[in-house]
Amino acid sequence: MISLWLFLFPCLSLVRVVPAEKGLEFPQYDGKDRVLDINDKNYKKALKKHSMLCLFYHMPVPDNKEQQKQHQMTELVLELVAQVMEEKDIGFGMVDSLKDAKVAKKLGLEEEGSVYVFKDDRVIEFDGLLSANTLVEFLLDLLEEPVEVVENALELKAFDRMEEDIRIIGYFKSEDSEHYEAFKEAAEHFQPYIKFFATFEKSVAKELTLKLNEVDFYEPFMDEPVTIPGRPHSEKELVEFITEHRRPTLRKLRAEDMFETWEDDIEGIHIVAFAEEEDPDGYEFLEILKEVARDNTHLPDLSIIWIDPDDFPLLIPYWEKTFKVDLFRPQIGVVNVTDADSIWLEMEDEEDLPTAQQLEDWIEDVLSGKVNTEDDDDDNDDD
Amino acid sequence: MISLWLFLFPCLSLVRVVPAEKGLEFPQYDGKDRVLDINDKNYKKALKKHSMLCLFYHMPVPDNKEQQKQHQMTELVLELVAQVMEEKDIGFGMVDSLKDAKVAKKLGLEEEGSVYVFKDDRVIEFDGLLSANTLVEFLLDLLEEPVEVVENALELKAFDRMEEDIRIIGYFKSEDSEHYEAFKEAAEHFQPYIKFFATFEKSVAKELTLKLNEVDFYEPFMDEPVTIPGRPHSEKELVEFITEHRRPTLRKLRAEDMFETWEDDIEGIHIVAFAEEEDPDGYEFLEILKEVARDNTHLPDLSIIWIDPDDFPLLIPYWEKTFKVDLFRPQIGVVNVTDADSIWLEMEDEEDLPTAQQLEDWIEDVLSGKVNTEDDDDDNDDD
Repeated sequence: MISLWLFLFPCLSLVRVVPAEKGLEFPQYDGKDRVLDINDKNYKKALKKHSMLCLFYHMPVPDNKEQQKQHQMTELVLELVAQVMEEKDIGFGMVDSLKDAKVAKKLGLEEEGSVYVFKDDRVIEFDGLLSANTLVEFLLDLLEEPVEVVENALELKAFDRMEEDIRIIGYFKSEDSEHYEAFKEAAEHFQPYIKFFATFEKSVAKELTLKLNEVDFYEPFMDEPVTIPGRPHSEKELVEFITEHRRPTLRKLRAEDMFETWEDDIEGIHIVAFAEEEDPDGYEFLEILKEVARDNTHLPDLSIIWIDPDDFPLLIPYWEKTFKVDLFRPQIGVVNVTDADSIWLEMEDEEDLPTAQQLEDWIEDVLSGKVNTEDDDDDNDDD
Repeated sequence: MISLWLFLFPCLSLVRVVPAEKGLEFPQYDGKDRVLDINDKNYKKALKKHSMLCLFYHMPVPDNKEQQKQHQMTELVLELVAQVMEEKDIGFGMVDSLKDAKVAKKLGLEEEGSVYVFKDDRVIEFDGLLSANTLVEFLLDLLEEPVEVVENALELKAFDRMEEDIRIIGYFKSEDSEHYEAFKEAAEHFQPYIKFFATFEKSVAKELTLKLNEVDFYEPFMDEPVTIPGRPHSEKELVEFITEHRRPTLRKLRAEDMFETWEDDIEGIHIVAFAEEEDPDGYEFLEILKEVARDNTHLPDLSIIWIDPDDFPLLIPYWEKTFKVDLFRPQIGVVNVTDADSIWLEMEDEEDLPTAQQLEDWIEDVLSGKVNTEDDDDDNDDD
């Protein structure tokens, strides 16, 4: 089947027509068939054969030509990823939700359009941007150790800088500690979405005000961590606590789980903030936003999605059109995920960023329903 | 011609088979022909018609089928970019270096495989990764103001954080100052590769120790800027100084000018450092590297390329194979750009990062030729 699609193979390569010098050659799909058509007969063998198995779970290939091409494209993305990762012992396959319904059920596949990775006894769902770049990065992250060890002050600085991510850090006696073992097991549940760190150094622990076997949970953009109660912790206790506290007050949209994040709306809406971190205005706005998030992290229904437009250049014109906003400037608004209807906080010009108090008042109005996408329709909008 | 390639169009879209909710729809090529085949007769009109004209300069379409497909793929990347940017008044075209040699000469196109953007009286060469993402981001950057204004302490913090980039900042009386005008004109010469900032605020200038009409040049990763001598400056003086000081001691490989950077080798070699900034070891290594760069910024022949593997996931397995290194760990080595032959500094394990002094000694050995890729061939390598 794949041979037909050889025709398409350059589509998968990033283009460099005149390669002048060596050292930056982007891979091109070589046409070899590496992605399995998974069925009743071969899935067990595939699971056994590889240290990781990566399955794309899809709806039946439709009659519609356009959707067919989309499907074949996905297959080619997987083929390229399989080729690039060839030496890493990862298997790849496709599972049809109708034809292979039984296998899918056995494997626990549920969401069509997602990729499921089987590693040891775990299944990790990838519901992000299905591009070769994003998937390769995701798989490489899965191949790393689930826990990063922080050994000194400089490495601690690296840890401190990662404020965008949920981070878990624990202090243990040594690598042989049974509590560290439980911590590592817990880390595997969330790899690569949530980053786990550990230290065995008293000086590092002191800096973090961590007692022995204590584990701290850092919500993104918060100054202070939450200490997970009841040390030492079992794997189960850690997993439960993290699962419960996983949705942050402010989170950054990331390619690797962008669709999952978008589906995690609160009563059909998202509060969305656009801010380019590399831009002085964007940075300033983001700092105000973080302040508001810190002051309101106790509100369970508040979860703001920050999008850095620089991370999604192809979507910028689409967002500008859909939301009718200028993304050269910071913006914050409410988006209805059913129809992409939206309403945005008015800012006169670039110098007119809201204060933290104004932003807080506006967010309060959103949470109370006073600001909403439906009123806007009635008042001054016909679409 | 393009209609044939409709067949290929889903190749250009990022894949999302089951769009569940609204707000994150990636654009797909609609099949409409927007990219001009530029020739003697239409190039002047194209230049006049658009505020920006974006031309891909290519070698004649070869007989070789594989290269033909590559060429068509480039065309489709341009078509998608043209579609995405439709409302921004940018023209797109292709110029054949043989068939359209005269036009190419008139327009000053030189490097096959590069994209040239005509904006007002300037020509900007794009010699980066020809993906839709990178090109759209590049063009959007070109549409921004050439100078960012820094208004307060928070925005100054944003400026301080951009240590990866060459930054130029000046203090002027007001937007109407003739010296600011010259500064803006100079900025346009380097947009979007080099970032220009200005402030009209005394308090910000004081923080930067800038006198009126003074302009500081920040080399990437250096703590202290260089003050450009002889204020106030004409546009020409600024352009000359920046052009002369443009190649930094330590620079990060960026998608938007990666090939240009790679071609800027020093006597056929690059010193290349791989370090993942998000990783504690990588961060630590990078800090050591910065220290060494700061101590040796006076050496004209020293220019180290830092590659964050996270920025180029598809190249990681290729680099690991070509250079025979493990990119889960920091690495530094010498790469011969003619044959991609390389030699890497030995580090026993992750805990064995070199000290700044060791790194400095090794770099000295590279610059003196004591460490080189050729000896390695003789000693213990057959390839």
